Amino acid sequence: MLPQVWPAILTLGWILFATAAGEGVMALVALAAADGMATEFAVTAAVTAAVAGACVLTTKGRPFDLRFRDAALLTVLSWFLVPAFAALPLIPAPAALSFVDAYFEMASGITTTGSTVMAGLDTMPASILLWRSTVQWLGGVGIIGLAIIILPFLKIGGMQLFRLESSDRSENLLPNVRGVAKAVGNVYLALTLACFLTYWGLGMAPFDALNHAFTTLPTAGFSTHDASFGYFNSPALEWAGVVFMAAGAFPFLAYIRLVRPGSLRERVDRQAVMLVVILALATLAFAAWMVLAKGYDIGTALTKSAFNVTSVVTTSGFVSFDYTSLGAFAGMLFFLLSFVGGCTGSTAGALKVFRLEVMAKIAVQHIHRAGRPHVVAPIRYGARVLSDDQVASVGAFVFLYFAAFAVISVMLSALGLDMEVALSSTAQALGNVGPGIGPIIGPAGNFSSLPDAAKVILSFAMILGRLEILGVLILFMPSFYR
Amino acid sequence: MLPQVWPAILTLGWILFATAAGEGVMALVALAAADGMATEFAVTAAVTAAVAGACVLTTKGRPFDLRFRDAALLTVLSWFLVPAFAALPLIPAPAALSFVDAYFEMASGITTTGSTVMAGLDTMPASILLWRSTVQWLGGVGIIGLAIIILPFLKIGGMQLFRLESSDRSENLLPNVRGVAKAVGNVYLALTLACFLTYWGLGMAPFDALNHAFTTLPTAGFSTHDASFGYFNSPALEWAGVVFMAAGAFPFLAYIRLVRPGSLRERVDRQAVMLVVILALATLAFAAWMVLAKGYDIGTALTKSAFNVTSVVTTSGFVSFDYTSLGAFAGMLFFLLSFVGGCTGSTAGALKVFRLEVMAKIAVQHIHRAGRPHVVAPIRYGARVLSDDQVASVGAFVFLYFAAFAVISVMLSALGLDMEVALSSTAQALGNVGPGIGPIIGPAGNFSSLPDAAKVILSFAMILGRLEILGVLILFMPSFYR
Repeated sequence: MLPQVWPAILTLGWILFATAAGEGVMALVALAAADGMATEFAVTAAVTAAVAGACVLTTKGRPFDLRFRDAALLTVLSWFLVPAFAALPLIPAPAALSFVDAYFEMASGITTTGSTVMAGLDTMPASILLWRSTVQWLGGVGIIGLAIIILPFLKIGGMQLFRLESSDRSENLLPNVRGVAKAVGNVYLALTLACFLTYWGLGMAPFDALNHAFTTLPTAGFSTHDASFGYFNSPALEWAGVVFMAAGAFPFLAYIRLVRPGSLRERVDRQAVMLVVILALATLAFAAWMVLAKGYDIGTALTKSAFNVTSVVTTSGFVSFDYTSLGAFAGMLFFLLSFVGGCTGSTAGALKVFRLEVMAKIAVQHIHRAGRPHVVAPIRYGARVLSDDQVASVGAFVFLYFAAFAVISVMLSALGLDMEVALSSTAQALGNVGPGIGPIIGPAGNFSSLPDAAKVILSFAMILGRLEILGVLILFMPSFYR
Repeated sequence: MLPQVWPAILTLGWILFATAAGEGVMALVALAAADGMATEFAVTAAVTAAVAGACVLTTKGRPFDLRFRDAALLTVLSWFLVPAFAALPLIPAPAALSFVDAYFEMASGITTTGSTVMAGLDTMPASILLWRSTVQWLGGVGIIGLAIIILPFLKIGGMQLFRLESSDRSENLLPNVRGVAKAVGNVYLALTLACFLTYWGLGMAPFDALNHAFTTLPTAGFSTHDASFGYFNSPALEWAGVVFMAAGAFPFLAYIRLVRPGSLRERVDRQAVMLVVILALATLAFAAWMVLAKGYDIGTALTKSAFNVTSVVTTSGFVSFDYTSLGAFAGMLFFLLSFVGGCTGSTAGALKVFRLEVMAKIAVQHIHRAGRPHVVAPIRYGARVLSDDQVASVGAFVFLYFAAFAVISVMLSALGLDMEVALSSTAQALGNVGPGIGPIIGPAGNFSSLPDAAKVILSFAMILGRLEILGVLILFMPSFYR
């Protein structure tokens, strides 16, 4: 049976209305700030609302029955189309971006990647800066919803491990979803508020604090300054960033489980523990290298290492100094760290720690079995024994991730991008990280000088990565339509 | 039970006697060619023979009972130790290599990698050139034996798929092994002879033809000229090289199956077909790019593309021109191709086509199932249904390969190697390919300028890759010794 296209278009219409509403609010912000962008935002809100209205009207009178397969179609449609409408305010001066640049910026926004083509942020109108941050914050809402509700049902990349517990018993999970969505939404709001107050309290101006809170919780990375967190030059703010970036990369359901009754062992999330261990080890390793090889003092090394390592591993993409200027080792380390990712069910991208843990367990079991071929030991994740199907799902995802990485890298190199730029821009886009490696697209640069074709490919890569590859690819399979 | 160390040491002794015998033969070659290396080879043969004798004598009177686990120990010991003794003739003038350089050269030789630290090959004594080629030819013998006999029993990376058919029925497979080994040995000899005659007939001097035949069949890549195949400037020789490199990358058991009775479908090897398809597609793609983007004529583009693509995919490592000088796309393409590899049961390294096919099938099945979660379809390889265990083995291998790649790359970058050099030298070493990417270690360069520590790491990486990662890692697992 064909997926029903009407429910997807209707829902897309409502999502575009929300986008238009956001642009409308920015028009009011522009009025209040007198930053000269009120008309531009009002016009783009009207255009977006018109398209949204068309979507809703064409589906009038058709039955609305959104099933999971329709939801997959809707997901892909919205993630590709919303950036096009969110991009409109960036086209007139002073942002004055081409449509491709503006689309790249907003694809980077909604996927919570954080790569930017914009320079001169420090003097950009307040409404434009707030719009970029808001798009990231809403993109974070979208991805958490997707990761908790839709992707586990598509059995994408082993995410069936993280299905809502009651969902195995019933096809109709709306009541359950509504309760969970509300609880997770409250956690997201509360953490954003806490982040805003902390940043403000530690010395950011309220407007900077709001924007950075909006882009920290979704592990997103847009800043109001070209120098990103480096602008504030404040170890206290960097450590606050470490805490809230990690908070955004923990599974949001884990916050709800944490406050439930039960033993600490049951309540503390396995993924979150693994992420903290990885962050601590990588931070210590890079800090040690900064002290021993580059002569930094221990305090500075720990702060800079913790902030930038956490930023890349959680796929946030803020930077507090140009680590790639420290040479080959730093570049390679941050390149490799951009594959790690945070926890499933959070706003973080890339491979994600549970998949690395599962793959490592399969590998260790495989080595053991080579020595003792007759021993059969199941692979466990926490208290649960993984089914062969789950193991294969995780393996399939990891393979597809590297296959997509190879295809996109070679396409970028065909456009003339050198190996460092092609590989690191692909890794950051697929992983929704933010900065690449090297002087052009690294922490001190931005993506504006890349050719348009590269920006289009990278926009696609960001959305591909954000939807866990499979979320896009299933639409290309004939079996999806049967 | 501890692995029996004595059978391994005794067998190692015999392998070192063979090495000494090889050096002895080279002393005679040096005498005949009057190239001034007779004394050097005689002395190193004596030293090697003395150590071999010590190995054999210390095991005198101990029971000899070589089981598979002991064979694993022996394998690792020999692959690490033989290069040290084979390296001795390269230390005196005129080669005049440091021990690290000489060890790297011979590790590259015995693993059939083909990376070299030696320049001035065109004027090197004949005995040294022939010794390098001979070591590669014998390394090829070693790896075929390993791939057919030992690795499938360790269930390494899904190689249990390629167990000898009768071996499932009996633990004692010596009679069977002996017959197979003889047949495979004859195929290897016959192909080497055919390659020698072809090269000679197409214009190589007999000495060049012999050396290149010795390094073509094991997909190895040492040449007698700094310019490798480019020296001969002969499309006919390049196409002959394509044929014999591919012949060396086909599974050697497939030659035996091909002449058995049965339908063509049963007799033609699935891996070999897949390899030919990959070679054809990659050759056409790169040739098209050479014509369209770089203005080559079609004939030259096809020849150069076929030769160099086949060389990298089969992990041979000969070059006929400096493709990396053509820019970013060529560098990236050859970098990615160095992960592919030939067929299991051949002399080729890297991931190997059957693993890529299995992973691609798992991924496609996974995408299908996302759309239709209730359909269960087994994964087939040819006529056989893969067990979950085999699927997990392949996934584990691929993950370990990339994990080893990441660890070695970051170690090399800590030594100051830039990203292109670190990534491509790791890829070529783990895959036993030969040249890296870029001006330093690419087709026009060599590995001599790398720091000693990098050469040691890369020597280890070549052996790790040659023994399919697991062959080395199992020795580090406590369970191996229980």
